[in-house]
Amino acid sequence: MSDNQFGTDGHLRHLLTLAEFPRKTITGILDRAEQFQFQLGQANPQYDLLAGTTVINLFFEPSTRTRTSFELAARRLGAQVVTLDMAFSSTTKGESLVDTLYTLESMNTQLFVVRHPAAGVLEEMARHALPHVHIVNAGEAHISHPTQGLLDVLTIRRHKNNLENLSVAIVGDIRHSRVARSALHALTAMGTRDIRLAGPSEFLPNDLPGEKFTNLDKALEDADVIMMLRIQKERMQTDLIPDQHEYTRRYGLNNTRLKLAKTDALVMHPGPMNRGVEITSEIADGPRSVIREQVTNGVAVRMAVMAELMGK
Amino acid sequence: MSDNQFGTDGHLRHLLTLAEFPRKTITGILDRAEQFQFQLGQANPQYDLLAGTTVINLFFEPSTRTRTSFELAARRLGAQVVTLDMAFSSTTKGESLVDTLYTLESMNTQLFVVRHPAAGVLEEMARHALPHVHIVNAGEAHISHPTQGLLDVLTIRRHKNNLENLSVAIVGDIRHSRVARSALHALTAMGTRDIRLAGPSEFLPNDLPGEKFTNLDKALEDADVIMMLRIQKERMQTDLIPDQHEYTRRYGLNNTRLKLAKTDALVMHPGPMNRGVEITSEIADGPRSVIREQVTNGVAVRMAVMAELMGK
Amino acid sequence: MSDNQFGTDGHLRHLLTLAEFPRKTITGILDRAEQFQFQLGQANPQYDLLAGTTVINLFFEPSTRTRTSFELAARRLGAQVVTLDMAFSSTTKGESLVDTLYTLESMNTQLFVVRHPAAGVLEEMARHALPHVHIVNAGEAHISHPTQGLLDVLTIRRHKNNLENLSVAIVGDIRHSRVARSALHALTAMGTRDIRLAGPSEFLPNDLPGEKFTNLDKALEDADVIMMLRIQKERMQTDLIPDQHEYTRRYGLNNTRLKLAKTDALVMHPGPMNRGVEITSEIADGPRSVIREQVTNGVAVRMAVMAELMGK
Repeated sequence: MSDNQFGTDGHLRHLLTLAEFPRKTITGILDRAEQFQFQLGQANPQYDLLAGTTVINLFFEPSTRTRTSFELAARRLGAQVVTLDMAFSSTTKGESLVDTLYTLESMNTQLFVVRHPAAGVLEEMARHALPHVHIVNAGEAHISHPTQGLLDVLTIRRHKNNLENLSVAIVGDIRHSRVARSALHALTAMGTRDIRLAGPSEFLPNDLPGEKFTNLDKALEDADVIMMLRIQKERMQTDLIPDQHEYTRRYGLNNTRLKLAKTDALVMHPGPMNRGVEITSEIADGPRSVIREQVTNGVAVRMAVMAELMGK
Repeated sequence: MSDNQFGTDGHLRHLLTLAEFPRKTITGILDRAEQFQFQLGQANPQYDLLAGTTVINLFFEPSTRTRTSFELAARRLGAQVVTLDMAFSSTTKGESLVDTLYTLESMNTQLFVVRHPAAGVLEEMARHALPHVHIVNAGEAHISHPTQGLLDVLTIRRHKNNLENLSVAIVGDIRHSRVARSALHALTAMGTRDIRLAGPSEFLPNDLPGEKFTNLDKALEDADVIMMLRIQKERMQTDLIPDQHEYTRRYGLNNTRLKLAKTDALVMHPGPMNRGVEITSEIADGPRSVIREQVTNGVAVRMAVMAELMGK
Repeated sequence: MSDNQFGTDGHLRHLLTLAEFPRKTITGILDRAEQFQFQLGQANPQYDLLAGTTVINLFFEPSTRTRTSFELAARRLGAQVVTLDMAFSSTTKGESLVDTLYTLESMNTQLFVVRHPAAGVLEEMARHALPHVHIVNAGEAHISHPTQGLLDVLTIRRHKNNLENLSVAIVGDIRHSRVARSALHALTAMGTRDIRLAGPSEFLPNDLPGEKFTNLDKALEDADVIMMLRIQKERMQTDLIPDQHEYTRRYGLNNTRLKLAKTDALVMHPGPMNRGVEITSEIADGPRSVIREQVTNGVAVRMAVMAELMGK
């Protein structure tokens, strides 16, 4: 848990991590996100909750999905959004990140959405920000991606209501996944008791809660929810997982394995997918998949987070 | 002709190609574009026809002109626009283009403007898009650039009214030009009978309609419209066209040659120009040039296409 | 002074340089900027003075700070803004800058904000622009950055009222600094009589007004304003300044040196700072620093310049 996230009045000030996050805050955000749900194919309602608010997307890693989701969320709330692709265009002059924060908040930016490859940078920004400025973590190293965790539990809640009695299997390279960590934190906050982490043993860190499985079939048994993670090809050159084919054979989700889970199990994936590697296309596009719903819920959750932070 | 372009109700659903395009649809778009014409130096009228619509510009090739034209067109119609420069920033993670489409349409994007260097990608996106989602081709390999074809015929129509009896010469590297192909399609749809393709023989493909000329002077004789194409320098290292100087001598438009055409002939160029290579500056900036009008008409045509696709 | 900056009616048409700029025009812009001042942490007021105006940011050098400042300024005035990162994405096709201007103004862009590494390019654009089109210099080679000069004098004026009797020390690599040149021009226009240029002798050009000091301590004596410049590390490999440590020892601002100035002296820096090199963090974040105010004033000044150019 970050000491910086909540103001002295108990309101959410920054969203940095879901570690030890209060359940009622999550529930409040999810309830709010329900109000912002939109219908695909209908005109997007235009809100003015963030009129007069300047939001800057500061992305120090390339991103299409998350960056666009935040940008649309902010604009549908009526904010002015500027997206700065810091991976390419800037800090070529070597300015420190804190000075970049000082500069941009001096232009009266009230909300920063930041993705950064280094751990701890978000905390540091939050420590230095002006009292009225809010920082949202849009992906931090391998350790945190809180809006992803929120959209994951929103997606589950919309199908399963109560999360406490669910069996949730998270499958893949958990060690290097900020998505897995934030999902774990969110599920823990929501009271989910049966969380299973499945993958090659070197991908299962000891410091995380949840039962560990190196045998995927066992992890899937009667599962209500299966969260597949993206496998990065450069991670596969190990002794245990010599190649992609072997990874797919042991940890890929296919129809045979899906039958081990409950018949109404949800299949999730944060994207981008390696179709045919960690998940078959048949499942990704099939009736149990809620992968695209996750994306839709992501916009609504980000709208809810920003409205909450701005006290609207 | 693409099977995907028109819905079962006969309305335009995607704009992928002008091949075998109905004349009345083109006429409808041009008439609509006339309503969206603006006066340089006057305030741009702000429409709300696309309020609530999210438009994503997906550019897999660098572009300044076309990208900005689409962006301004969408915004002047009241849409929310996000431009993604996919040539640089993304798909570094290797997601398939169809999954990118699924992701972005799940954020309730209703309209995609796509430029891609590979043939067929636009068709594939249109095949996989949700029923309410529209795809506009903003440049596809060497084969199609339909809004350029539309702005070309709009520009001609504004000066010449009926296009049927015109003599139109298209000059340059026709083989590698999506601009030439879409102009050909648009002129054919509008009933133009005398279309002349002029250039070095290896730049004149056999599969295109129109009379072929390797002698530019003959192609220009009594022409009403001269469409010059950009020549790419790397194309010139051939046996027939050994260098740029030789290309200019044989296929460059200069005042001597312009006199072969009708005295009220229009000179067009899609840009960006190589001044002094395929066209002299005297002509590019002279009284017969409608090159900048083409750019102005391009915004109006794109507004018309987007309004038409969205059924507004 | 540029012949192109003022229309025949005496109104400001382009902002290219502050050299020989009329004091009353500066005063008018500063007064206007005061009206656009905003309160950090308050909602940004949304003006509609530039409704119907299209503004294009054309940046041929990377920039975060200036680009964002102009973008927010234009949007808070109600303009449509498109930012084109020309350092990366375009002119790969080799179009001339004047043709880029012709193209973009044909889309009915009324105002261009341009940063370019080559001297004279801004003048050339202004010469070729349509009569109703305005060009704003956002940084030109080492020679001009007029909105920076304006925000500098605005920042000083807010603290010191009359600028005539102030002693202002500009410190660092003045030779290669467009910031220093524009500050000099602005201060000269405002009647400041005691301007001191301090730095290693090879950084002090002979063609600029102001007293030259190679001894920083002497330049700081009883100064009212200290403007520190960013030192670029690649400039330090010279005979006189063998390394960064030596530069800091001789030309860095620290608390001992600050005591030589007046007790209410202002410390300024255009950013981005090299903390610990040309300025200590203690001073940068201390009570005499107005560095972040400069950034805040920059947005207001740019709003004022754009409103003035558009005759609003």
